[in-house]
Amino acid sequence: MYFWDLNKTNMSTRIGIIGAGLCGSLLAIRMAQRGYDVSLIERRADMRVTGAPEGRSINLALSDRGIQALLQAGMSQVIDRETIPMRGRMIHSLGQEPGLYAYSGRSDEYINSISRSGLNMALMDKAETHSNLKLKFNCRCDKVDFSSGKITFFDEVEQTVFVEEFDVIFGTDGAGSAVRNSMLSQSSTVRFNFSQQYLEQGYKELSIPPSVDSGWQLEKEALHIWPRGSHMLIALPNLDGSFTVTLFQDFNGEYGLDAMDRDLKKARAYFEQYFPDALALMPAFEHDFVTNPSSSLGTVKCFPWHLNGKSLLLGDAAHAIVPFYGQGMNAAFEDVYVLDQLLDKYGDNWKIVFDEYQQMRKINTDAIADLAVDNFYEMRDYSGDPLFQKKSLLEKRLEKEMPETYFSKYSMVTFREDMTYNEAMIRGRKQDELLLKYCTEVKDVNEVNLSHVLEFLSSNL
Amino acid sequence: MYFWDLNKTNMSTRIGIIGAGLCGSLLAIRMAQRGYDVSLIERRADMRVTGAPEGRSINLALSDRGIQALLQAGMSQVIDRETIPMRGRMIHSLGQEPGLYAYSGRSDEYINSISRSGLNMALMDKAETHSNLKLKFNCRCDKVDFSSGKITFFDEVEQTVFVEEFDVIFGTDGAGSAVRNSMLSQSSTVRFNFSQQYLEQGYKELSIPPSVDSGWQLEKEALHIWPRGSHMLIALPNLDGSFTVTLFQDFNGEYGLDAMDRDLKKARAYFEQYFPDALALMPAFEHDFVTNPSSSLGTVKCFPWHLNGKSLLLGDAAHAIVPFYGQGMNAAFEDVYVLDQLLDKYGDNWKIVFDEYQQMRKINTDAIADLAVDNFYEMRDYSGDPLFQKKSLLEKRLEKEMPETYFSKYSMVTFREDMTYNEAMIRGRKQDELLLKYCTEVKDVNEVNLSHVLEFLSSNL
Repeated sequence: MYFWDLNKTNMSTRIGIIGAGLCGSLLAIRMAQRGYDVSLIERRADMRVTGAPEGRSINLALSDRGIQALLQAGMSQVIDRETIPMRGRMIHSLGQEPGLYAYSGRSDEYINSISRSGLNMALMDKAETHSNLKLKFNCRCDKVDFSSGKITFFDEVEQTVFVEEFDVIFGTDGAGSAVRNSMLSQSSTVRFNFSQQYLEQGYKELSIPPSVDSGWQLEKEALHIWPRGSHMLIALPNLDGSFTVTLFQDFNGEYGLDAMDRDLKKARAYFEQYFPDALALMPAFEHDFVTNPSSSLGTVKCFPWHLNGKSLLLGDAAHAIVPFYGQGMNAAFEDVYVLDQLLDKYGDNWKIVFDEYQQMRKINTDAIADLAVDNFYEMRDYSGDPLFQKKSLLEKRLEKEMPETYFSKYSMVTFREDMTYNEAMIRGRKQDELLLKYCTEVKDVNEVNLSHVLEFLSSNL
Repeated sequence: MYFWDLNKTNMSTRIGIIGAGLCGSLLAIRMAQRGYDVSLIERRADMRVTGAPEGRSINLALSDRGIQALLQAGMSQVIDRETIPMRGRMIHSLGQEPGLYAYSGRSDEYINSISRSGLNMALMDKAETHSNLKLKFNCRCDKVDFSSGKITFFDEVEQTVFVEEFDVIFGTDGAGSAVRNSMLSQSSTVRFNFSQQYLEQGYKELSIPPSVDSGWQLEKEALHIWPRGSHMLIALPNLDGSFTVTLFQDFNGEYGLDAMDRDLKKARAYFEQYFPDALALMPAFEHDFVTNPSSSLGTVKCFPWHLNGKSLLLGDAAHAIVPFYGQGMNAAFEDVYVLDQLLDKYGDNWKIVFDEYQQMRKINTDAIADLAVDNFYEMRDYSGDPLFQKKSLLEKRLEKEMPETYFSKYSMVTFREDMTYNEAMIRGRKQDELLLKYCTEVKDVNEVNLSHVLEFLSSNL
């Protein structure tokens, strides 16, 4: 943690941060700590008053890249208070006892289940401790003028339109970003590259309540997965003893989300067939299925992220990804961390900072976007291919017995904040390819000489 | 030409076509010929009254796919009247005499320069001959309700908002489509995949006037190219003896479009260095350079193209491409032709028609989009690589001496309307690869036995 810049007075620079979600709130804290005149403006109502909004995932996996950024902002307490470590994947194969697979052979490498709203509220509370930071709710960003820095807002409580002017604007307003849409509407003059791609699958959140004595009805310190090939169920623990369960399934087809939304009997029959053990723990199954929407899964990429050093997109607004690597929030927090380092390097020469930021960062958020889509297929098929299983076993031996030397792709992406996503992707993919090749020529991976494997890897990487 | 369906009365079906550009006007004619109650609604003023709008390319290359669709709609006269054949590329290398390279060895394979506005006005005139077709101008489409079929328009003359309801809506409103934007704003519920990607290069249109005796100052029946590696100039003939000249150049850099737009002396110096022969024919160079904007070059892809059989995107609204294959308009016209065939097959079971249309068509418009970007690089480097030149020479021999058997990628894309774009791309790319391989092992392509080459190709394709 470094607060060397706390004493700077940058109060003449007015910074507007649009969107007080996880990324925007963390960024606001760092900008306030740097002494700027910060306005953090949110479209929704204050969730600390109204409760968490619907339609967002309830808990998330916090890992090292995210933790690094939270620590820098002085948020260590919330990590201690709000997280449950998940040390491995608990795999629930149909008709078999569940088995726990550690995330790596190193005992300090685990991910953490955290409540989205709990973390968001803690960040807002922290933000409001700064006297140079104003937090406004219920204000919808309607239009951004990127040359003057003027933003037109609609106050949803007062039902009035108002305009505010900023020196610098940060768009942290999520996957459906209004700031980005303002850039999109000027596409051809700024040559704004943009893509959004949806998967054929969507998701629906369900819930396993605490047991009668307020305990966890499944292994607490694990991320639970019920892999079924083309579809799967996962569950993450909450502090109150409950689990948030998420079904990933096609929208179309006989047991697709659309069909099950129309016919709850079908939903129950489907769960009875594929996830009977989980269904037995969900007394409010029908209620949850009706109440929670079936949501889509999309990837958003765009470029450039900044216009003339006047505005910058961060987090989901710049790079929304699918959730299968558990890195959406972590990537957004790392955005703030990387930006922070460049402000140290260049001071507030915003154009230089934003230019270098997008040049170095884009390749990494593209990498995690692609890794997340890859993992969509890998996770579903976890129980499938025997060769893949063999390779997985070999990797676990390598990580356990050579913890200083061998890091799996997952470990590099999730636990190695000293590597970029792109480095982790390139090295990880190559390594996977080589290990699969190695495994085709091996009968029993338990008898393999691990030094020999490492030699094979290092001579080919 | 087939008008077997002219006698059908489909007057109870109200069809709204948004955008009276080339694609929308042609589609309106065919829908009117099929007897529907057609409204063709355009945002701009009537160009037949106000003159052609600015900011669009002035002439275009019409080729076989486009001609096929125009003929079906009974537009043969406009082709006879408005086109100038371009039998080959006239290459202007720096400091050398220009040389003509025919488009193929077959004398009936040429492309046609046509005035965008002349063709558009002829299509509008034709459309208005149908009593079951209404053509409205100055009406901006603001919002489409895809379930009710209601569209909210803004009448730019009356300054009033009005709503019209249609049974079927066609979005033919170009690369910046408002109909598509309405789909985009409902992205996550309809899972609308969308991407727009800009090139680093842009273009600017200039002009070579007719000679004093109203003749053409360059070879009339050719597409002129001044290839300069990373940038190029092209010129297409107009009926009045003039040529429309287009510069393709990076926006950035010392002699980039942005820098030259700021400093006309720089623009003249650049032309003096790279295109002195063309500059000598442009007395209004500075005037044109200032008056005509530097425009961007982008590719738009999206999917799905239809929502519930109620609305369909066609032409640039569905698939805007860069101009380097001269296929933008031809692809849009082929859209109408393909849709027409499916209406013959299924009648107006719109949902079935639109489903099959997008399934069969998307792969082909993706192919031409990718081919057009490829050609961006190929055209600029035309004068470059000696191996490429060798292969080009060999291809010309093959096309000339084996006209029934050998078709280049360019010929398949441009002249073989019996093949899809995707087939042409796959076969063409493979063929190019094989010919280049063949040429690396050959000293003089004039001495090659062509039957041997064909054998080599057919055994590997």
